[in-house]
Amino acid sequence: MNRHQYRLEDLAHLVQGEPVGQVDLKLQGLASLDAARKQHISFVNADKYLDQARQSQAGALIVTADLREKIPEHQNFIVVANPYLAFAILTHVFEKKVTERGIESTAQIHESAIIADSAYIGHYAVIGENCVVGDDTVIQSHVKIDHGVEIGKECFIDSHVTLTGECKIGDRVRIHANTVVGSEGFGFAPYQGKWHRIAQLGSVHIGNDVRIGSNCSIDRGALDDTILKDGVIIDNLVQIAHNVQIGSNTAIAATCAIAGSTIIGKNCILGGACGVAGHLTIADNVTLTAMSMVTKNISESGTYSSGTSFMENSQWKRSVVRLRQLADVPLTQLMKRLDHMQAQIESLESTFKLRK
Amino acid sequence: MNRHQYRLEDLAHLVQGEPVGQVDLKLQGLASLDAARKQHISFVNADKYLDQARQSQAGALIVTADLREKIPEHQNFIVVANPYLAFAILTHVFEKKVTERGIESTAQIHESAIIADSAYIGHYAVIGENCVVGDDTVIQSHVKIDHGVEIGKECFIDSHVTLTGECKIGDRVRIHANTVVGSEGFGFAPYQGKWHRIAQLGSVHIGNDVRIGSNCSIDRGALDDTILKDGVIIDNLVQIAHNVQIGSNTAIAATCAIAGSTIIGKNCILGGACGVAGHLTIADNVTLTAMSMVTKNISESGTYSSGTSFMENSQWKRSVVRLRQLADVPLTQLMKRLDHMQAQIESLESTFKLRK
Amino acid sequence: MNRHQYRLEDLAHLVQGEPVGQVDLKLQGLASLDAARKQHISFVNADKYLDQARQSQAGALIVTADLREKIPEHQNFIVVANPYLAFAILTHVFEKKVTERGIESTAQIHESAIIADSAYIGHYAVIGENCVVGDDTVIQSHVKIDHGVEIGKECFIDSHVTLTGECKIGDRVRIHANTVVGSEGFGFAPYQGKWHRIAQLGSVHIGNDVRIGSNCSIDRGALDDTILKDGVIIDNLVQIAHNVQIGSNTAIAATCAIAGSTIIGKNCILGGACGVAGHLTIADNVTLTAMSMVTKNISESGTYSSGTSFMENSQWKRSVVRLRQLADVPLTQLMKRLDHMQAQIESLESTFKLRK
Repeated sequence: MNRHQYRLEDLAHLVQGEPVGQVDLKLQGLASLDAARKQHISFVNADKYLDQARQSQAGALIVTADLREKIPEHQNFIVVANPYLAFAILTHVFEKKVTERGIESTAQIHESAIIADSAYIGHYAVIGENCVVGDDTVIQSHVKIDHGVEIGKECFIDSHVTLTGECKIGDRVRIHANTVVGSEGFGFAPYQGKWHRIAQLGSVHIGNDVRIGSNCSIDRGALDDTILKDGVIIDNLVQIAHNVQIGSNTAIAATCAIAGSTIIGKNCILGGACGVAGHLTIADNVTLTAMSMVTKNISESGTYSSGTSFMENSQWKRSVVRLRQLADVPLTQLMKRLDHMQAQIESLESTFKLRK
Repeated sequence: MNRHQYRLEDLAHLVQGEPVGQVDLKLQGLASLDAARKQHISFVNADKYLDQARQSQAGALIVTADLREKIPEHQNFIVVANPYLAFAILTHVFEKKVTERGIESTAQIHESAIIADSAYIGHYAVIGENCVVGDDTVIQSHVKIDHGVEIGKECFIDSHVTLTGECKIGDRVRIHANTVVGSEGFGFAPYQGKWHRIAQLGSVHIGNDVRIGSNCSIDRGALDDTILKDGVIIDNLVQIAHNVQIGSNTAIAATCAIAGSTIIGKNCILGGACGVAGHLTIADNVTLTAMSMVTKNISESGTYSSGTSFMENSQWKRSVVRLRQLADVPLTQLMKRLDHMQAQIESLESTFKLRK
Repeated sequence: MNRHQYRLEDLAHLVQGEPVGQVDLKLQGLASLDAARKQHISFVNADKYLDQARQSQAGALIVTADLREKIPEHQNFIVVANPYLAFAILTHVFEKKVTERGIESTAQIHESAIIADSAYIGHYAVIGENCVVGDDTVIQSHVKIDHGVEIGKECFIDSHVTLTGECKIGDRVRIHANTVVGSEGFGFAPYQGKWHRIAQLGSVHIGNDVRIGSNCSIDRGALDDTILKDGVIIDNLVQIAHNVQIGSNTAIAATCAIAGSTIIGKNCILGGACGVAGHLTIADNVTLTAMSMVTKNISESGTYSSGTSFMENSQWKRSVVRLRQLADVPLTQLMKRLDHMQAQIESLESTFKLRK
């Protein structure tokens, strides 16, 4: 966090909210309800946090009009329609930003590269032939930008990122440390018991407002490009294979892996550690819960899952044996057979009664 | 892609194929059937691509003799036995290769290291005591080659790779960006509630023609070496723990994890996100489908799987509850019991009929 | 391994063991039973290794008094209560350590940073404003230490590590190559179909004696800190999301992912590739077997599991279909219904007998 102070009224203005109480109150940070002290502003997003809010020592609270009524213990508020969004906006006020501009003396930049005057290029960055870095883009130390890579404006590329494969990156893209974009896709032709490498001639195209976490691998395409559309957000340690396409505003949580040539729609949400097989199509607005395995197309929006719930180990061991046995149990026949036997018994019973 | 032009006849010659049509046709790139224009050559690998092939604007097509007959819309072909293999070979023609040779002025190389004259060492690479880099090997920028590491000829080591633990790497090995080879294995002796680190004294031995993707971790052995044999291919974000041995030509897809001391045979294929427990032995020619969990030895070649298929979320929730219940359902007894009850009913019925 | 020689008696002294046989025997390395030659010392940890021990060519063996009696083929021993712990201790004797001290001329260090005289800073390391590096800490080449990061004494930070987000790191911490600590947590507020980034204002706090493997991602907190307590050990390619807390001496194997704000107790063990959902609490002394998915709190210590065992592919396919069907099979009713039908049959039989 930076150490500036902001007036309650000014913060309210930034989020188009109504300041309530001491409008001149000086605030110097955001904090969670529990950790907040009088110099902090915190937020309350739902009734379930009311107890914490009442006991919080925060100097001010971001609330809805409705929630405000339920927290008489506090006097200073910013009243908004969506406190979580207001909080998201205010984090940017208190964020310590990289303000450096220009090119560090140790950066190695090819003479043909075009670097905007307002960009920052950190120590030991290496930028190759014909690269472009746009206005106000920050390239941290040790970044490798291989020949032919183009980066838009207002991007943030953290240390040790490798950009290669002539990838093209839009505006306001954030790529976190040690991620690789444009590395060679995993393509091999099997022949006579050996793997023959297929040089990957495609590239990666990343739209605007995309966010990629740390330690991700986004491979370049075999012939056509791998594509991440505008607004895609990706967490850490995610694998995007060659020729994958991810639709706008789709969110992918950590350690997911998307296999080659799969097309994922827009506005999808993939929980952590999901795996999606290759050459599939996933519709728009699909949610996968964590650790799901997708092996077929999904053509309808909705929520999908796979895997099993966790259990105490001895119960789990029994369930695992049963599932193995289940392979040879004709479940649908079993239910029919029960119904049939039930009918036989009832028939016997009624005949029997008649004969009494 | 590079921008050279190649004659159809010359390309045909490279793949030992028969040129058909305008043998002097100039081609300047490979492309997929859909994306190809008249300056491109594309390939057709099976009947299912015939519609795309007929409509393709590609200047020429790589086909089998049989497929050629079915595409009268086109005039220019390279006819081969295996179009996919021919395509794989031609990708190398159109690939833009690193042609730099020599040592960049900013590379830090220990005086005892032996670097072949025909090797390339990129900016800010650091090479330690007693290292060896063979003929025509390319070391990209920011690579760290720790003391005692030896690399063969015609290798490609991409940016931000860390080679440590005195690992030994064969010829024609490709290691993609941000991968770590030779880092310390995860070995700790538990004693009195704490973990006591076991310094890892082994190394990593990588054969010829091995390919390792980006962001992989290949740990060095505790005492003996971790071993990847000739022709092993590994995708991105893969974990190979200490003392693992991988047999020749085995392929491991992205985000797999192989635990310590496990031995995997040759010609195996591991789908994405598989986990193999430690101290196991997996036979030759074993295929694991994606996201499989292997907890016991596999002594027979074949295809193995685990996990569950994905379902619509509400159905999945029910299946998860049932699987939990299943732990206490005696499935094999259940079928026997049904058979027994059926016999009882039939006995009652026949006795009953006799008495009528 | 280093190449020093050590007397058997001196090694025994280091592990508080009893030397037996030629106490002056010169040993120059540790080796596994199979690989050991006469210049090596090996260890025997259990009866199941007795055959290997008897045939080993090791010059000396670390054993218990009990095991020694069963290996008459050997003469030279170190007798201890816990051979595995003694082995762990001796690995440090034979480990080749980084002995460099001081700052390499190519390191870029901000004038406000405080670097201990006994620390080592490798080539092309970049250290920002107000950073602290403690006594005897080794920072390998290409490490990025962003502004405000503090590192204690006797730490080892391997090449290409990125430390950012003003993280604070204790003493004797080891962080392996290409790991990222303090990168931005994956926090976004959804609003009108777009993701609004929440700048992450918290940090990461790492205790003493923590070990983090290669290619890990440990994100900084949204407001409060992400916390790894003393003695935590983490393998490679692990994801620790923002605001996670890991208790003392908990061990996390490779490719695990812990989602945001989850609190894991002390002395837990997570097998490889486990996933733990966000906002959960896991008790102390919990063990998760490999590839477990945890979606609810665990309040009791014990061993927990999820997933299914691997099967031959055709059996697996049947089991997967059955599990899907199982969603609609009322298992608990089924057993009750069977009992009820059994009772009906028996009633019919006995009535029938009475009427005979």
